[in-house]
Amino acid sequence: MQRYVMVFEYDGTGFSGLQTQEGKRTVQSEIESAMSRIFGVPTILVASGRTDSGVHAIGQVAHFDADYKKDEFSLLRSLNSFLPSDICVREIRKVDGDFHARFDAKRKTYIYKFYISPNERPLYLNRALRVNTGLDVSKMMDACECFVGTKDFKSFCSKKSGKTDFVRTVYSCKITEIAKDEYELQICGNGFLYNMVRIIMGTLLKVGEGKLKKADIEKIFQGKARMLAGRTVPPYGLYLKSVEYERK
Amino acid sequence: MQRYVMVFEYDGTGFSGLQTQEGKRTVQSEIESAMSRIFGVPTILVASGRTDSGVHAIGQVAHFDADYKKDEFSLLRSLNSFLPSDICVREIRKVDGDFHARFDAKRKTYIYKFYISPNERPLYLNRALRVNTGLDVSKMMDACECFVGTKDFKSFCSKKSGKTDFVRTVYSCKITEIAKDEYELQICGNGFLYNMVRIIMGTLLKVGEGKLKKADIEKIFQGKARMLAGRTVPPYGLYLKSVEYERK
Repeated sequence: MQRYVMVFEYDGTGFSGLQTQEGKRTVQSEIESAMSRIFGVPTILVASGRTDSGVHAIGQVAHFDADYKKDEFSLLRSLNSFLPSDICVREIRKVDGDFHARFDAKRKTYIYKFYISPNERPLYLNRALRVNTGLDVSKMMDACECFVGTKDFKSFCSKKSGKTDFVRTVYSCKITEIAKDEYELQICGNGFLYNMVRIIMGTLLKVGEGKLKKADIEKIFQGKARMLAGRTVPPYGLYLKSVEYERK
Repeated sequence: MQRYVMVFEYDGTGFSGLQTQEGKRTVQSEIESAMSRIFGVPTILVASGRTDSGVHAIGQVAHFDADYKKDEFSLLRSLNSFLPSDICVREIRKVDGDFHARFDAKRKTYIYKFYISPNERPLYLNRALRVNTGLDVSKMMDACECFVGTKDFKSFCSKKSGKTDFVRTVYSCKITEIAKDEYELQICGNGFLYNMVRIIMGTLLKVGEGKLKKADIEKIFQGKARMLAGRTVPPYGLYLKSVEYERK
């Protein structure tokens, strides 16, 4: 058996998230079904982490073990030929047998896309969050730095999370103007709690709406309670951009 | 009767183009049907120009005449509530009765989106053209200037066009890198012939593929024959970005 690592992209709109769930269409089950047809035996995909229903990925990473005679390029082509048009394998490589897509992940980068408009824009349907005019994005940009560092992110974690250790390190957090009235939050860290990026985005929106000051964010961290932070913004603006490893 | 001008966006994927055609789903027929319900009488939409099946618009412009008691904001909201999610009215204003969305248009700006990848990317499905690796985009960027100026664009016009005057002025033509391996051609002119942007894009791709040199483009202009230029690239990478008027 050879261990392989692969990088893949998906449009999350048509999936009940990444992870296999009985009776649901998921990214994992689609890829495993394509792999099982190619390899002739049931094959398990181990991703760097889950993504929720509606969340997209540009560079999700996973590993799997297989006996396959031809080269990686042939495997990539074969997999893509069996996959639906909302999933695409972008890279496949052979790795050491002890490489693990989840445990060896060192950094992840997420993007959250939003645009300012009084109306829903068709070209952003299922792709970015609409926010109302009157938002002060410069205040949001300024508040981004509050999330950088090694901190207890309990206030920015869904109560549904089963985790008990809420300390994570965020290396960078920045909002960039992509085009007029179109923005991206980009955040990179060593790990993210359940809904963490979506709650940080919701908290930044409260700052932009004038309902929260930059100085209040430190108090939210200290309070260690989910109710202190902003809302959980919808999944469809969120993209897992990349996962970094020391070796791959 | 009051004349109104409106700016609207659509995702062209689900439409057989802008213009009404018997038995087909078009942008015009969807908007006219929403207007007829609001105004209670059949209402005609006059757009700045047609777009083909699959072509998108960020800022298409049209005019119409109506008797409507409430203000423009109320009309905009009412229209959007009747429109499907792949069309959105972004602005509505009252204009003089002799304003004409087609005849008064002074400049149009189009975008053509493309990305370099060995595989089709799900997040660009129906939104941008995939081109193979090995493309020399810097040569394409350099060749863009050949299309600027007042020229006879007969070689860059579909043979299906009924036009006899092929002289148009292109004010600017530029390729910008949006992100790694993602590009946009932006072209602004006083008018465009049938398929003109898609043929210019196809010709620039030939330059990037090394099949055509920048110096050859002048010969293609002089030859005044469609067969000399590059292929007509697919409609789904094309966006009508904006239409400019001296008054509106």
